[in-house]
Amino acid sequence: MTPKNKVITIIGGKGQMGELFCRLFESLGHTTHKIGSRDWDDAKQYIAKSDLVIVSVPINRTSAIIKQVAALMPPEAILADFTSIKVDPLLAMLKYHSGAVIGLHPMFGPTITSTQSQVVVCCEGRYAEQSQWLLDDLAQLGFTLKQMTASEHDQAMSFIQGVEHFITFSLGTFLHHKNQHPEKLLEIASPIYLAKLLLMGRIFDQDPKLYADIIMANPTRIALIAEFAEWLQSWVHKLQADDKTAFIEEFSRATKWMGDFTKYSQNISDDFLNIDLKK
Amino acid sequence: MTPKNKVITIIGGKGQMGELFCRLFESLGHTTHKIGSRDWDDAKQYIAKSDLVIVSVPINRTSAIIKQVAALMPPEAILADFTSIKVDPLLAMLKYHSGAVIGLHPMFGPTITSTQSQVVVCCEGRYAEQSQWLLDDLAQLGFTLKQMTASEHDQAMSFIQGVEHFITFSLGTFLHHKNQHPEKLLEIASPIYLAKLLLMGRIFDQDPKLYADIIMANPTRIALIAEFAEWLQSWVHKLQADDKTAFIEEFSRATKWMGDFTKYSQNISDDFLNIDLKK
Repeated sequence: MTPKNKVITIIGGKGQMGELFCRLFESLGHTTHKIGSRDWDDAKQYIAKSDLVIVSVPINRTSAIIKQVAALMPPEAILADFTSIKVDPLLAMLKYHSGAVIGLHPMFGPTITSTQSQVVVCCEGRYAEQSQWLLDDLAQLGFTLKQMTASEHDQAMSFIQGVEHFITFSLGTFLHHKNQHPEKLLEIASPIYLAKLLLMGRIFDQDPKLYADIIMANPTRIALIAEFAEWLQSWVHKLQADDKTAFIEEFSRATKWMGDFTKYSQNISDDFLNIDLKK
Repeated sequence: MTPKNKVITIIGGKGQMGELFCRLFESLGHTTHKIGSRDWDDAKQYIAKSDLVIVSVPINRTSAIIKQVAALMPPEAILADFTSIKVDPLLAMLKYHSGAVIGLHPMFGPTITSTQSQVVVCCEGRYAEQSQWLLDDLAQLGFTLKQMTASEHDQAMSFIQGVEHFITFSLGTFLHHKNQHPEKLLEIASPIYLAKLLLMGRIFDQDPKLYADIIMANPTRIALIAEFAEWLQSWVHKLQADDKTAFIEEFSRATKWMGDFTKYSQNISDDFLNIDLKK
């Protein structure tokens, strides 16, 4: 069983994610310290006596902060981060800290009302056995842990947060550009398109800066988006050449490759496509 | 009240949509005749005594069939069609038939189990008052009628069936191209992305030929798709130039233009994003 007396310092602990995790760790009996951007003078003493330091700061400051923090840490402490990309922070942590290192990505926002079925991605860094108590604690709190490599994580996230959000941005702004209001489309949309329209609309109810930061998070993500745009463009050329055969063959190859996923998608989405529009 | 003794002939009546509507019209007391592609010898006598002829044949044969049928119709009969595009068939009907003309597009497939809240788009052609009994009957059967112009309909459908399905095709085949299996993404997807992945997957469970026909239905649709691809490409260039300001401004303009739709989308989609993955 985990000894419940660890000292945990969260850098960026006064942000909402920091606050949430401090509360959760304290509920397990640990002592937590929150370091905000104005608390750097106090940081040294807290970091020096920590068993675990978690860096939870905006993406563009992560590597610089990791370097500063690692210099103040005891070598036997664990260094971890919460950044939404994993390769670069993990490389920085391994470079500047000689002890145990682990990359974490909580796949949810700070406003969750329950930890149940919320996913935390874990990317192994160094001396995994020393971080085991942390993973056990996260599991005990109710989180679902997904182990994957940092590069697997970053590629998947570039699809989820890069390509997909960029498509949504492009579609919504194109509708505006063509003055085709989504409410008009709603009236004659089939259930599938209805769901897609509503999922598009909800993104435009959010902070544009947040989406700019997510979509443009790093050059790899932008490169993947550019590659997708080229792929799409190559298919536009085939449509223009009326090449139905190529379309049908490509479609069928993707279907075969997806395997059971297509039938599964059909079944699960049937459940949520009974959309009630009144509200 | 509608006199329930009309004679209605459906060209393409042996297809599933034709069968469905014959059943429905008969339930109201009308007499129906179904003309399949091998029944042309009988067609003449049925068409000559019809009050209403509905053309429900594949899109690429619609205009030719309209010409043939119109030549056999009494001038006082109504000519209608069920094609999923409306401008070209309506132009053909107005050209070849001198009497009442109306374009219809049932926005559902032939396997519906109820007519309630199923939409039929109606595009006015000529002598609307003479077709009123037909619209009344459709409403009495439970359908929701949406009046719009043929060009409004076709533009909206080019977004719904053209741009959206093409994006889905491109995304699914791009995942295959990059060997990024959707089941892998599913494991770490947020609820919104989860819904989008499942809606993507279900398309690949369908007939590729059907989607080729829908996406490539006509040159206008392909032109809109090409315009969307250019729009997307122009934004890729802005991402590559790290132009966050342009992104944020465009996003905010679209949000403002969408108005209440963004909040509405948020509320309604919150309801169906509680997705149960077990099955």
